[in-house]
Amino acid sequence: MTDFAATLTAMRAAGPLVQNITNYVSMNVMANVLIAAGAAPAMVHAEEEAAEFAAIAGALTINIGTLSPAWVRAMEAAAKVAAEKGTPWVLDPVAAGATSYRREVSARLVALKPTVIRGNASEVIALAGAGAGGRGVDSTDTVAAAEAAARALAGQTGGVVAVSGPVDFVTDGTRAARIANGDAMMARVTATGCALSGVVAAFAAAVPDTFDATVGALTYYAVAGERAAVGAKGPGSFAVSFLDELENVDESALRAAAKIEALS
Amino acid sequence: MTDFAATLTAMRAAGPLVQNITNYVSMNVMANVLIAAGAAPAMVHAEEEAAEFAAIAGALTINIGTLSPAWVRAMEAAAKVAAEKGTPWVLDPVAAGATSYRREVSARLVALKPTVIRGNASEVIALAGAGAGGRGVDSTDTVAAAEAAARALAGQTGGVVAVSGPVDFVTDGTRAARIANGDAMMARVTATGCALSGVVAAFAAAVPDTFDATVGALTYYAVAGERAAVGAKGPGSFAVSFLDELENVDESALRAAAKIEALS
Amino acid sequence: MTDFAATLTAMRAAGPLVQNITNYVSMNVMANVLIAAGAAPAMVHAEEEAAEFAAIAGALTINIGTLSPAWVRAMEAAAKVAAEKGTPWVLDPVAAGATSYRREVSARLVALKPTVIRGNASEVIALAGAGAGGRGVDSTDTVAAAEAAARALAGQTGGVVAVSGPVDFVTDGTRAARIANGDAMMARVTATGCALSGVVAAFAAAVPDTFDATVGALTYYAVAGERAAVGAKGPGSFAVSFLDELENVDESALRAAAKIEALS
Repeated sequence: MTDFAATLTAMRAAGPLVQNITNYVSMNVMANVLIAAGAAPAMVHAEEEAAEFAAIAGALTINIGTLSPAWVRAMEAAAKVAAEKGTPWVLDPVAAGATSYRREVSARLVALKPTVIRGNASEVIALAGAGAGGRGVDSTDTVAAAEAAARALAGQTGGVVAVSGPVDFVTDGTRAARIANGDAMMARVTATGCALSGVVAAFAAAVPDTFDATVGALTYYAVAGERAAVGAKGPGSFAVSFLDELENVDESALRAAAKIEALS
Repeated sequence: MTDFAATLTAMRAAGPLVQNITNYVSMNVMANVLIAAGAAPAMVHAEEEAAEFAAIAGALTINIGTLSPAWVRAMEAAAKVAAEKGTPWVLDPVAAGATSYRREVSARLVALKPTVIRGNASEVIALAGAGAGGRGVDSTDTVAAAEAAARALAGQTGGVVAVSGPVDFVTDGTRAARIANGDAMMARVTATGCALSGVVAAFAAAVPDTFDATVGALTYYAVAGERAAVGAKGPGSFAVSFLDELENVDESALRAAAKIEALS
Repeated sequence: MTDFAATLTAMRAAGPLVQNITNYVSMNVMANVLIAAGAAPAMVHAEEEAAEFAAIAGALTINIGTLSPAWVRAMEAAAKVAAEKGTPWVLDPVAAGATSYRREVSARLVALKPTVIRGNASEVIALAGAGAGGRGVDSTDTVAAAEAAARALAGQTGGVVAVSGPVDFVTDGTRAARIANGDAMMARVTATGCALSGVVAAFAAAVPDTFDATVGALTYYAVAGERAAVGAKGPGSFAVSFLDELENVDESALRAAAKIEALS
């Protein structure tokens, strides 16, 4: 099995510049998570500059949490530049099945073939067209129930699809893995999923094999989460420790804690 | 007197989906507060989807902290859907008297008869047309000075009006109560008022009597605040403990600490 | 040498109302920092009201972190009102050199002669037209390398220019000072620079000599940062302590810790 823990060191050595077109709720959290992890975030979403900036970024995240028509135009333009330049980009399809506007926009973004799609089970099922799934931003489906949808979606985009939950699932259509790290507390703080998509982008900027990059990023994030949960008195103190641990987890701590199951 | 502490258990049992059209400053805080309290927040404000989402939400919050014409259209459309469906919605008239734009927009929203209006004394006085009140987002009037304005406003909308301050005041035009819980530290962290409006919406989604729901929500929030102030070294550590306490306060802790005075 | 520590007491006595037209990433942090410092923040950026509000604010901050055409119009209108009223306003030229849109907008704002410009070295160099500088929002130049650009820019605007970094530099074109306080941890939390620009505005609202106000604000901020770094376990716990220390640092603590070098 690949040494996924080494991807963390590779990402930190690169310190990639990650452009994020993301929702208002997550912007601050995502920036702090990326800095703590060792990357350099930039929130550049205006139609007037998003595509120009995408040409110099090491990776790009597109998150549909809070949409507007001008932002959607910026997302499409930036994704096209990323594709032309061979820059990895990650789609986070927040609440993709919740409204007709989200269903339409997320389908257009999937058609641009994201390097990675990372969402919860209901979002991945909704993207794959296999159900309406979800209640607001929360998943009503299990990760296991989304595995087939994830494989189908990866086949369709030619990229990697990651499903977050108590046990994460990652596939590139051929390879697959489950990651059993993490803590339930992670779902008690808003924007942890959004910020994870930024971390996946940072890893993908530095690690040539996108499947390895995604598995490495998800494992690193979940290990930081389970360390942060120790001693937390609630979601406030958990969120503080989580940022600390994202900085403090290193390759050897990651290797010791990782619970990755490679699937065929 | 009604057992207001039981409203917390009722809200948590329902775990209501609360849609928030709120300002940029408060979005992240409001989402975290609602999760810690036991509700499911969704920040859906785009004109293209706000009204559609309002049809599936358990409650709706409309906050005028950072306005724009497109958002105002989304607010009005979502409020109308909520009214048609009988879904409770809460208006937070941030700095309602500060500019002519805010005065005009808040008057239009009041005309749509919010289920609950929650603001500080100067905001409620401004809405009732009794003064220009306030300095930026801060109140320059006492809660006591706003009681008559609150009663008049409740008579006008047929809903509940809550005035936040050192001692809170709640009325539905007939019944009224004062709540003497809370801590001055709560005003030293931005967006605590905005997030409280979301908590009121969550309680109103689960508790049929909106007056009871509002008194329950304000008391719960203030009790969490006074517990968090114990041992806080400043506004940073207070904010962290506040989220922890919002999760940790339960019905019996709430009942033991509540200082509610029922008025005729 | 001026007693810069006294500027903190003067600012707190005034408790100035500071209007901020700032980016989405920093809004919440900036509001909390200003409250902890002792000022009253208001985030009012809509084209429909920004200029009207500028007429009642004690100071104004304009930050180009996340731009859009409507916001740029609001920025220009508010800056013009501030200039007419003699209200100090601070420009924060986030990533000024990163895209053509930012270069164009920041040049237009500099032409309106900000009372203070506060940025990192690459941003100040970019504004002075001396280089493209920077990588995303991070500086790739040293503060020392930006001193000449800062002096030139101050000469051009007739205002104060402050360059943030490990050792800060402040000049009004004639006087200059270096401030050797602070901690590297401050750069590991997003929006600390943005929030500092708000603190400079608060000091400038209360202290007639803008050079003294700026030196006082930067020293106060850096001293709070170095106190917060003691015992921090990472960027999460640092950010919490930083807000606490911004409230707890007083004039005597500031005087004892200040490392200000006056230059000719």
